[in-house]
Amino acid sequence: MSKFEQKSPNKDHFLYSFLNPRSMAIFGANNNLLSTMGSMQLRNIITGKGIEEIFPVHPRLEKVQGFKAYKSVFDIPVTPDFAFLILPPKAVIDVMEECGQKGIKHLLITSGGFREIGSEGINLSNKLDKLAKKYNIRFIGPNCLGFYNAWYGYPEKKDAYINTFWPYMIPERGNISLISQSGTIAAQTFWHAKELGVKISKSISVGNERNIDLVDFLEYFKNDDQTEVIGLYIEEVKRGKEFIKIAKDITPKKPIVAMYAGGTKAASRSIMSHTGSIGGSNKMMKAVFNTTGIFHTDSIIEFLHYLRTFSAAQKYNIFPNGKRIGIITDSGGSGSMMAKTAELNGLIVPEFSSELKKSIFEIIPPTASAINPIDVTFDVNFVNLLYKIPKIVMKSGEVNAIIVYGVFDFDEVLDTMENSGMILDDKMKDIKMMIDNAVLKPIKRLMKKYSIPVFYAGPFPYKYPWFQKFLSYDIPIFELWDLPTKCLKILCQYSEYRRNRLTLFASP
Amino acid sequence: MSKFEQKSPNKDHFLYSFLNPRSMAIFGANNNLLSTMGSMQLRNIITGKGIEEIFPVHPRLEKVQGFKAYKSVFDIPVTPDFAFLILPPKAVIDVMEECGQKGIKHLLITSGGFREIGSEGINLSNKLDKLAKKYNIRFIGPNCLGFYNAWYGYPEKKDAYINTFWPYMIPERGNISLISQSGTIAAQTFWHAKELGVKISKSISVGNERNIDLVDFLEYFKNDDQTEVIGLYIEEVKRGKEFIKIAKDITPKKPIVAMYAGGTKAASRSIMSHTGSIGGSNKMMKAVFNTTGIFHTDSIIEFLHYLRTFSAAQKYNIFPNGKRIGIITDSGGSGSMMAKTAELNGLIVPEFSSELKKSIFEIIPPTASAINPIDVTFDVNFVNLLYKIPKIVMKSGEVNAIIVYGVFDFDEVLDTMENSGMILDDKMKDIKMMIDNAVLKPIKRLMKKYSIPVFYAGPFPYKYPWFQKFLSYDIPIFELWDLPTKCLKILCQYSEYRRNRLTLFASP
Repeated sequence: MSKFEQKSPNKDHFLYSFLNPRSMAIFGANNNLLSTMGSMQLRNIITGKGIEEIFPVHPRLEKVQGFKAYKSVFDIPVTPDFAFLILPPKAVIDVMEECGQKGIKHLLITSGGFREIGSEGINLSNKLDKLAKKYNIRFIGPNCLGFYNAWYGYPEKKDAYINTFWPYMIPERGNISLISQSGTIAAQTFWHAKELGVKISKSISVGNERNIDLVDFLEYFKNDDQTEVIGLYIEEVKRGKEFIKIAKDITPKKPIVAMYAGGTKAASRSIMSHTGSIGGSNKMMKAVFNTTGIFHTDSIIEFLHYLRTFSAAQKYNIFPNGKRIGIITDSGGSGSMMAKTAELNGLIVPEFSSELKKSIFEIIPPTASAINPIDVTFDVNFVNLLYKIPKIVMKSGEVNAIIVYGVFDFDEVLDTMENSGMILDDKMKDIKMMIDNAVLKPIKRLMKKYSIPVFYAGPFPYKYPWFQKFLSYDIPIFELWDLPTKCLKILCQYSEYRRNRLTLFASP
Repeated sequence: MSKFEQKSPNKDHFLYSFLNPRSMAIFGANNNLLSTMGSMQLRNIITGKGIEEIFPVHPRLEKVQGFKAYKSVFDIPVTPDFAFLILPPKAVIDVMEECGQKGIKHLLITSGGFREIGSEGINLSNKLDKLAKKYNIRFIGPNCLGFYNAWYGYPEKKDAYINTFWPYMIPERGNISLISQSGTIAAQTFWHAKELGVKISKSISVGNERNIDLVDFLEYFKNDDQTEVIGLYIEEVKRGKEFIKIAKDITPKKPIVAMYAGGTKAASRSIMSHTGSIGGSNKMMKAVFNTTGIFHTDSIIEFLHYLRTFSAAQKYNIFPNGKRIGIITDSGGSGSMMAKTAELNGLIVPEFSSELKKSIFEIIPPTASAINPIDVTFDVNFVNLLYKIPKIVMKSGEVNAIIVYGVFDFDEVLDTMENSGMILDDKMKDIKMMIDNAVLKPIKRLMKKYSIPVFYAGPFPYKYPWFQKFLSYDIPIFELWDLPTKCLKILCQYSEYRRNRLTLFASP
């Protein structure tokens, strides 16, 4: 069991039972998995194998997706931990009243049609508040998709999860938790998270935040050992003071990356109709982010890559001790573009010492270049490119981080050769195997030893087998060369912030 | 045969015979496809089925990849149109001399080790010049990968191509031509080009440009009907005046997108060792791009998407007549983020008229929003989202372009359902078929009719079947929501530029 897997959940917080219910009543699911959102959501909950007892409530059906259905919550033989409501807004009020009478204290209300649709919706929202108070109920939503918990019931349960979203795709389990005022960012990003190796701990769609808001979840994640990186999608911050306080507490130990959707006219209009909130100006939110040490971006692709970058840094404690980077490539163009964007991003690409250049020249072709960027030119010795040269550069002490461009996908290269009629000998086929022992394991050891992250990149889309192999070792790999320098920039910034703040807090 | 496929090559320019040689001598290829660059290049040339006669020259081998090999160029029974040299730099001089004596006038010299390695290399370069003069030879390179021509021998040959690069992947045939001072941008981008639907006409790696430079190729592409969009990767511009003149001529009719690698210290160092050139400042190059109407970016992913955007606009003559955009989504978060980035990118997201809102509300759920962005919320009626609502918005005249976020991948959804034990009826399976006739064909017609581009986006990576289906119709589709507003920005800018410049040039 790795260090990471021993990490424990935050059992002391009231949200623990929300994220780990043992029994659940569900309203709004049937057997039509193609067009009923609640049915898709129940299907995903069943697939997760987390919940022990599921009680579908349905006015007509005898069975819902294999489970005995009940006409009313009162017919359920026990009091479930949790009720999940996917109902038209007006029906929510009645069902919530009944859940209250039944004694259910934790509700997830995904239904839209509340304050985001105007005065009638606000009336309905007020009714939710009253019922919550009357029955001592806490609820997530309304107007949300619920949550995903990859660590459901851990450590007692080993492989269970709970996914209340309607999309069926889930990424690998990891240390990144998301809190989102949009279900899309919480759930629809999972296809890419899966492909990019963005490994998720929990993902929460908080919706209108009528009863539980993002500050509650920040408090929960602060003490959750299963969460080491936090991603936020924000349309408004309701409790500004509390948000700033908790964020300041968290960021020296757990990096936070945020997207803020507001700040323009059309965006505000969109947000008003989406969650009914009124966002602040871009400038104000940037000030909040800067004060609290939160990284922010308007790009969802950057957001996902930043989270992935911090995830590996946190998991293996690999933080660069400065901004000097080495670039190693088999392609002059990618080297030039990365050198340019590195410098535009405030990183330093130092020219290597003559000693270092000399050691590198011992293993690269005579027409190559070793000044930084190192351009090995066309050279099929991939162990040199991917491991030996990075090792020499790491040992030199002349850089704090390394980017290697030039990852091949030998599986496809070999397949293509075989298909074109060439006979491959065993040595060639060994290339497929060699990568683990000759590159991935030893470079990972060196990254930890020197606290020097090594990012890899290549011309292939993420779907290719070798890319997925790197990701299985949590070694950051990138398609093409846009994102490595951007990710190193924020990693270097965070490392500096963390060093300074941690030192500050450590002093008596 | 479509309008596009009738387009003719630029046969009057000397580069036509370079890109369409009928016979070729090749130096430096053998039978080792795993580690010899020249062998990989010959394999790709053979796969393209373009060249009629291939004459490998090799000191020892009897046969190279199935072709009879010759000990020397003098042994070849005819005078080949073209010679391809993948040899150590010193060997190049002797072979070039022999090619000259043999009467070969067109050479491709991929070998590195010339001016980019310093004084010794410069001497060798001067020798190339002398030999070129002595024998009236034109050559591409040295220090390059050569070229790809998807339209080899067209229209006489229908499906042949020529690919002198070592990577084996080729994208679909199209109207985009690349000229690159890096082989990586010319060749290694093809995996992504294939996946993103960036459809290539020609791609040229010009290397050190000792004899033929990017201005020559710009002149060629200016009059090449098979080229309607041009992409450039620039480390330096050798003939500045000529570059500006030809670029100004081209851009009102064919958009040009450029990446410039220089402008920072480390980038200049990298470029010096890469092609041996000295780049200008970022500021100067930006001024050149602005003067000539060239779009530029430092991002390779943006570069590819911009080219794809212009490709479809050119092919079907769909240019927006203004900057007002409509956003249609089933996901509030993506709508808010696109509204924000649209406005940050200078686009206008107008609130819809009450008339238009009323027509939209006739087909969306009551909890939805129709103000722009239109948020249909969770609604599985994909024909509404993907076709009917865009149609209503197009007819209104209130926008010049549309982005739709919410493309599902029904293939995988249905597969997942079937795998989870659900029995799908024929109607459900029909969804797979319906998309062509219910969405893609009619929306394409409307895009042409109104000159309103419709961009689609969804949560899936490009590899998914529905994404590839959209791309097969040249309908721009994007993974997630970062790039649609960026691409619309440059398309709107170009449309305005084109209208004004074309008007200017049309007046007597």
